[in-house]
Amino acid sequence: MDDLRRAGRSAADLVADHLAAVPGGPVWRPVPDADRSWLSHRPLPATGRPLESLLHDIRDHVLPYPMGNGHPRFFGWVNSPPSPAGVLVAPLAAALNPSCAGGDHAGVLLERTAVRWLAELVGYPHPPGAGLLTSGASMATIVALATARQRAGRREGWDVRESGLYRHRPLAMYLSAEAHSCLRKAAELLGLGSRYLRTVPVDGAFRMDTDALRRLIAADVDAGVRPFFVTASAGTVNTGAVDPLADIAEVAREHDLWFHVDGAYGALGVLAEEADSGYAGLGLADSLALDPHKWLGVPVDCGCVLFRDPAGPRDTFSLVPPYLRDDDADELGWFSEYGPEQTRSFRALRVWATIAHLGRDGIARLVRRTTRLARTLAAMVEASGDFDLLAPVATSITAFRHRPAAMAPGEVEALNQALPAAVQRRGRAFLTGTRLSGTAALRACVLHPATTEDDLVVLLDEIRAAAKELTA
Amino acid sequence: MDDLRRAGRSAADLVADHLAAVPGGPVWRPVPDADRSWLSHRPLPATGRPLESLLHDIRDHVLPYPMGNGHPRFFGWVNSPPSPAGVLVAPLAAALNPSCAGGDHAGVLLERTAVRWLAELVGYPHPPGAGLLTSGASMATIVALATARQRAGRREGWDVRESGLYRHRPLAMYLSAEAHSCLRKAAELLGLGSRYLRTVPVDGAFRMDTDALRRLIAADVDAGVRPFFVTASAGTVNTGAVDPLADIAEVAREHDLWFHVDGAYGALGVLAEEADSGYAGLGLADSLALDPHKWLGVPVDCGCVLFRDPAGPRDTFSLVPPYLRDDDADELGWFSEYGPEQTRSFRALRVWATIAHLGRDGIARLVRRTTRLARTLAAMVEASGDFDLLAPVATSITAFRHRPAAMAPGEVEALNQALPAAVQRRGRAFLTGTRLSGTAALRACVLHPATTEDDLVVLLDEIRAAAKELTA
Ligand SMILES: Cc1ncc(COP(=O)(O)O)c(C=O)c1O
Ligand SMILES: Cc1ncc(COP(=O)(O)O)c(C=O)c1O
Repeated sequence: MDDLRRAGRSAADLVADHLAAVPGGPVWRPVPDADRSWLSHRPLPATGRPLESLLHDIRDHVLPYPMGNGHPRFFGWVNSPPSPAGVLVAPLAAALNPSCAGGDHAGVLLERTAVRWLAELVGYPHPPGAGLLTSGASMATIVALATARQRAGRREGWDVRESGLYRHRPLAMYLSAEAHSCLRKAAELLGLGSRYLRTVPVDGAFRMDTDALRRLIAADVDAGVRPFFVTASAGTVNTGAVDPLADIAEVAREHDLWFHVDGAYGALGVLAEEADSGYAGLGLADSLALDPHKWLGVPVDCGCVLFRDPAGPRDTFSLVPPYLRDDDADELGWFSEYGPEQTRSFRALRVWATIAHLGRDGIARLVRRTTRLARTLAAMVEASGDFDLLAPVATSITAFRHRPAAMAPGEVEALNQALPAAVQRRGRAFLTGTRLSGTAALRACVLHPATTEDDLVVLLDEIRAAAKELTA
Repeated sequence: MDDLRRAGRSAADLVADHLAAVPGGPVWRPVPDADRSWLSHRPLPATGRPLESLLHDIRDHVLPYPMGNGHPRFFGWVNSPPSPAGVLVAPLAAALNPSCAGGDHAGVLLERTAVRWLAELVGYPHPPGAGLLTSGASMATIVALATARQRAGRREGWDVRESGLYRHRPLAMYLSAEAHSCLRKAAELLGLGSRYLRTVPVDGAFRMDTDALRRLIAADVDAGVRPFFVTASAGTVNTGAVDPLADIAEVAREHDLWFHVDGAYGALGVLAEEADSGYAGLGLADSLALDPHKWLGVPVDCGCVLFRDPAGPRDTFSLVPPYLRDDDADELGWFSEYGPEQTRSFRALRVWATIAHLGRDGIARLVRRTTRLARTLAAMVEASGDFDLLAPVATSITAFRHRPAAMAPGEVEALNQALPAAVQRRGRAFLTGTRLSGTAALRACVLHPATTEDDLVVLLDEIRAAAKELTA
């Protein structure tokens, strides 16, 4: 144990040294061959070695090659730096090492609190038991979609768990052209077939067109397909757009669809007053996915799915027959009855610690600050002569394009396709690209509490410099 | 950062103090009302507070209520104590905080090594890219079953991802009566219907009866159902039995079934020479699930799924069309193309550290030692006048029953049903129960490196004492 105590203190120092050094280092760099080989090709060790020596290896071969998201000039995808509280409690969760499948211990009880706090943070209703932590939004979406599928079956007198999907009327689901790919992956996994996935067009602000949604539903009804599920995004990955939630809720109500909201990234955006009204209708969702490992900064992995009614996921996943449930000391039963996983990690400690450390205030400040920076970047883009803003800023993502003076449209397209990798290689800022309305776009997502306006200036300058390199 | 450095050192001390105190404390205790309320009912904090104060709360309200699996007299389910190396590196993984979805960084590269080492440890073939870490065996099973389903569809000219399961011939799967419930959950999730899940009887040693398997397959073929998947257990959760893997592989080959092995708990058992021959055929599996968070002691959560052929899972989960894949610097692509998850945690660091710290030797020693203890317990049971052994010991689980002198059979049944909870409440040992051949059984799973023969004596004495309490 003394070994672990000594090594544990060294690890704490190594963590602090690493985090202190991040802002001064490159955002990202390719792994050089020697370390690539060390990381990928070492043989299985025949004998063991002391704990301290593991730390030296981690210092020399692992920590120098981050993904980049710890750095204040990381603007890629939707990946945040780790919350200090989340880092701090990681070894404690590992040392206690419960499985949060269920039972009576601190891990399970604290997960009830973590889930309730998340619901309350974003203003979603929370009857006890109506939610659980997951590995991320992809898994949250699978849990929600399976629950919706089970309900749709029940309403037609059919138990999907028992009979499977064979010989049944196909179920159709609706999502906007800007929805995250995890929806499609979930549908395929559940045997629902991507063929029955309807892509609803978006308006100029990349929000779902609800008239088009109604038309697609009507066409399916006419064709004998059963509409059962619609998902709205509260913060799309491309532009941060928030779909018209209340309107979509209304359509869902009319057509008896399950209404899911993907707030993986953006649900917390409701805390920035300016954006507030855009979130009206969030509380009407039958299920809501939100990712503590995104804006909130809980170290990866940590997602969450919330439900209006805890009976739905339990009916979908529990193997405990209802007549046996009375025995439970805790009438909510086990978390493993609400999702596909048996052994479940003690993610709750990181969520609890992160929220307790920041408080509701601190989280709102972070959300407002990063949202404001994304707007500032948009303003800088609009004020520039060589960048075009491609979407309004609804949350903390700015989508734009570089258009150097006197460049032909075809060249602009090729340039913007090549720019993200070129910027990344330079190592001073990191952003990623996407396609918007059929053209190449750059997108910067601001999630880091230490990002400043100066960092935005560097970002635009780096894009210009990378463009010069590419066109030289 | 100085805050985090100081608090990090305190956390390291707290970890060491906690781990040092575990063996001297109760294995488990019910959470008293005051702390139950603290853990479950605290309101969302409006404002934040210092890192150090979080540690005080964890010390006072969280660490005192473990699930029990850190203790050398925890014999419940299949939950191990955390490996010291896994605890040590937890904050470093959180501080680096990559998403191991893919890309070029240490997290992704080290996962290649972790997966390869696991394959090599258990003697399973490993072409590059043919496996990934998961949250546990439940998720590993979902990935394997989805891959098998996709292959079965392809062989009949049908793309399950695209068309779903509607209007197709049902697919049947086979598993023994002793298989883990995660197989059924996976089948239900995938829309395959529990109705098409065939339960194969077991022999007196709780191993799948392969003649019965053949008969069930023949009946399905006659009925127009397509047999597509068979799972064998390498270490069942109830008795640790290892199915006749080579025979089942042969049946799978004859009938073009996907052959999956659930080695979540027991795959590592192959390292105990005595058990070795029982594992012949493991390498023939199309997929193998094994859980580093079980016998290996990697802190929760950490599972792994291995494949013979990396093309299968990629065909099942990748959204990158094959014609775009050439662009990849790394021809294996992203881990997120091989499973349902996008953001993926840096589990590899804990696996790497645990294996590097113990070495192959140390792991083999752990497996042999715990296997031997389970046999010793079986011998003690057989030598006693008041316990019956209910199954041969194949791995590190001993299944038995308490039968106090002159107790009527009906009473013995009721007693053994009540015993696990009664033993748990006493706090000196922890075991769980199950049903075997229709009767209540006790089962003790030995995974802790510090468990001794004296602990086994305490276990049996505790069961006797609990029985006296129950019958008093
Ligand atoms: C809007 C949105 N939904 C879902 C996801 C998937 O979340 P995860 O990676 O946690 O599975 C993401 C990830 O970036 C996202 O931005
Ligand atoms: C044999 C077996 N298979 C599968 C599982 C499920 O594994 P997990 O809890 O990691 O999902 C278990 C868990 O105890 C098991 O013992």
